[in-house]
Amino acid sequence: MNSREHFIREVKWTGTEKKVARKAYDKAFERQCTAIATEAKRMLENITDPSEVWQVEAYLRDHRKIADRVYHYSYSDLLQVFSILMRDGWLKEADLHGIQPEKVVEIKEGAQSLLKIFRD
Amino acid sequence: MNSREHFIREVKWTGTEKKVARKAYDKAFERQCTAIATEAKRMLENITDPSEVWQVEAYLRDHRKIADRVYHYSYSDLLQVFSILMRDGWLKEADLHGIQPEKVVEIKEGAQSLLKIFRD
Repeated sequence: MNSREHFIREVKWTGTEKKVARKAYDKAFERQCTAIATEAKRMLENITDPSEVWQVEAYLRDHRKIADRVYHYSYSDLLQVFSILMRDGWLKEADLHGIQPEKVVEIKEGAQSLLKIFRD
Repeated sequence: MNSREHFIREVKWTGTEKKVARKAYDKAFERQCTAIATEAKRMLENITDPSEVWQVEAYLRDHRKIADRVYHYSYSDLLQVFSILMRDGWLKEADLHGIQPEKVVEIKEGAQSLLKIFRD
């Protein structure tokens, strides 16, 4: 196990960091839900055939499944969850102010790796 | 088998009736989809907490399941399907203009029976 893997596996969160992390997580969830609601509303407003309502249902269902897979609040998985949320634009670096810089670097590098995987 | 059961089982649709029936069925589907889309839009417009978007998703999912159960276009089941659609307000008696009066009576009586079951 290299030092990075060791850092991820043994990561500890102080009381202050936990508060910042929870707030950042909730904010990301809020941003994502708001964006999904906005898109669903836009789709509903642009319906030309009434049966297109089922496209909105499918859109919401797909995004609920995606959200269900990502949003699990566990300190042991939080670095990875934050990397995913940052990659997808729901978490901003500024939200992490107060969290140990090494963790922030890890989250950002994780987000970059995920972006690379996504591109390949 | 009494004469009513016999009528339902042996029901035949003329070419003209089939045209009227298809139009009435499509109109009912259109009305139902429009009402569902309107309600989903209303819900989205009244969101106070972003996570309420998942209530809209659940609403649409429930109504898709209901629609999936009802909307099957088969002439052997059409009297019953029309009774359900009339009970739920998506099919109007006027939509059935051109269909044999005995069938219309059967559809209306079916709708009434279903209303009674619903009430009990």
